[in-house]
Amino acid sequence: MQNPTFEIRQARPQDVPAAFALIEELALFEKAPHAVSNTPEEMLRDGFGQNPAFGMLVAESQGALVGISIYYVRYSTWKGRCLYLEDLVVTEKVRGKGIGKALFAATARKAQELEVKMMVWQVLDWNTPAIEFYKSWGAVIDTGWYNCRLEEATLYKI
Amino acid sequence: MQNPTFEIRQARPQDVPAAFALIEELALFEKAPHAVSNTPEEMLRDGFGQNPAFGMLVAESQGALVGISIYYVRYSTWKGRCLYLEDLVVTEKVRGKGIGKALFAATARKAQELEVKMMVWQVLDWNTPAIEFYKSWGAVIDTGWYNCRLEEATLYKI
Repeated sequence: MQNPTFEIRQARPQDVPAAFALIEELALFEKAPHAVSNTPEEMLRDGFGQNPAFGMLVAESQGALVGISIYYVRYSTWKGRCLYLEDLVVTEKVRGKGIGKALFAATARKAQELEVKMMVWQVLDWNTPAIEFYKSWGAVIDTGWYNCRLEEATLYKI
Repeated sequence: MQNPTFEIRQARPQDVPAAFALIEELALFEKAPHAVSNTPEEMLRDGFGQNPAFGMLVAESQGALVGISIYYVRYSTWKGRCLYLEDLVVTEKVRGKGIGKALFAATARKAQELEVKMMVWQVLDWNTPAIEFYKSWGAVIDTGWYNCRLEEATLYKI
């Protein structure tokens, strides 16, 4: 079958363990396998309790969760409310079948529903296929910014 | 007077016009003066209504607003809830007096109160004084990421 049937839908709490496995797959692909200190239990609490910290769309194919899009609203003082795409993952064995396109389009429609001014996200500079994918949607790509962080141990000493 | 008296406090709605002028000062410094399409009216609605989209600390000196820190909670699937520092601005004529340090420290304490896992922000690659300032706090600085966006006109066509 060339185009397996898949469905894009809003995530349910029971999707969290499989979604977390995709987040770990992405961290491995992004050469940061040890960066994930979050847990499925924390994701369940953070995303499905009161005042959820993020929303999630999932792609399901033949009963398995094969892709996710995780997003939330953030604020740009220059533009106003924006939808931030935190993670877009399609598991390696089903890539090239339009699942990423469908997830990205569904996330853009979510941004439209939320009436935000922009959709924003980040990509690694060596991830050429992703950069080309985003350009094909008309994305503007800005270089010249560094990401800064105070990690937990440093932050709590201030 | 070498060290003018200044006070760091939570912003009030009436601080928005002066805060907005500092945001425009920052955009000019960052060589993007035309990037600001937000307005003081929208900032007032977005930051001081129900479910505020951001928080703001201000530095006041001799009755004038001379600095701001704008922040909000965002979500890292790798780490969990983080405080994002959207803007840290001290107006040019009062720099070098410790106001930026005081605002940065107050923002870090806000992050501690909110019990987040990290504090994160961005800096322009040519802004060496800011990079040195952040390093002096123990910040980790990551290169290699591009910022992507779908602007309003493109987003609403999908």
